[in-house]
Amino acid sequence: MHGYTNDKDAYLKRLRRIEGQVRGIQSMVEQDVYCIDVLTQISAVTKALQAVGIGLVEDHLSHCVVDAARQSPEAGQAKVKEAADAIARLVRS
Amino acid sequence: MHGYTNDKDAYLKRLRRIEGQVRGIQSMVEQDVYCIDVLTQISAVTKALQAVGIGLVEDHLSHCVVDAARQSPEAGQAKVKEAADAIARLVRS
Amino acid sequence: MHGYTNDKDAYLKRLRRIEGQVRGIQSMVEQDVYCIDVLTQISAVTKALQAVGIGLVEDHLSHCVVDAARQSPEAGQAKVKEAADAIARLVRS
Amino acid sequence: MHGYTNDKDAYLKRLRRIEGQVRGIQSMVEQDVYCIDVLTQISAVTKALQAVGIGLVEDHLSHCVVDAARQSPEAGQAKVKEAADAIARLVRS
Repeated sequence: MHGYTNDKDAYLKRLRRIEGQVRGIQSMVEQDVYCIDVLTQISAVTKALQAVGIGLVEDHLSHCVVDAARQSPEAGQAKVKEAADAIARLVRS
Repeated sequence: MHGYTNDKDAYLKRLRRIEGQVRGIQSMVEQDVYCIDVLTQISAVTKALQAVGIGLVEDHLSHCVVDAARQSPEAGQAKVKEAADAIARLVRS
Repeated sequence: MHGYTNDKDAYLKRLRRIEGQVRGIQSMVEQDVYCIDVLTQISAVTKALQAVGIGLVEDHLSHCVVDAARQSPEAGQAKVKEAADAIARLVRS
Repeated sequence: MHGYTNDKDAYLKRLRRIEGQVRGIQSMVEQDVYCIDVLTQISAVTKALQAVGIGLVEDHLSHCVVDAARQSPEAGQAKVKEAADAIARLVRS
């Protein structure tokens, strides 16, 4: 059981849509679509991926971090440290 | 008592340094420094501000969220929702 | 002919690798991999996509913007306005 | 003469406002304002700084890059390389 287990199907659906969008960008490049239009689509897919990341962070905090904190403050804080590092990578990407 | 209370002096020191860097960018513009050098400094200050934000998120999760979760799962989840919204704003900025 | 035409194969290769990475994230979710590991991979793919975007911006400026500026300052500036909007979307994503 | 010379006063005004906002965040920390409210303000200032950066990029491309391209394609491309590196730092911050 992980934070995202309850929403697994919704996440898979979003990730399959993102995969389709990346394939769409490949077609744009193959068909010599104008650079600016390719860039607009890259920004859209980047946002969609970050939105999945933000959702995973929230689910992780709601389940894994809250559950660990219920066991002991130390267990909660260990999970927080790990989550904060993942959030930092997301903010910096 | 907030998440950052124990590190208040360290946060204030970092924020005063950021304030000084913003004043430094003003001097660069006043003295007609080359655009690219101004931009490099803007990226550096943006990263410094985000690093303060990431630190505040970690402190908030370690204290406010863990404490709330220790009271009840519902209290923990309410704090998580609020934190996730703040994290989303940070990722998108 | 667009900015990326000379590097089309290299861009397609990078985009196919990104597509594979997105499929890899789907497998991670299907196999209930730990949230934090999924998040690490999402940050990596986001960075890879942004790097493609940065490359396209550079190619667009080198070819389309420089060529337009060679025709007339006005043509150059019209292309710059369009490129700046695309860059803004990339910075904000 | 740089890209931002014509808008120097407007940039200085925006940077002074950002300096004031950073001082405002210091006051929030001194007065123990709730972490989430401090974070919201940090995201707002980060966005304001990035908007200044995006403006500088556009001004730099419109003036320095277009002018260099008017001299020779090689001069234009040298300026583009330098600008693309600065844009990359902005996207990654």
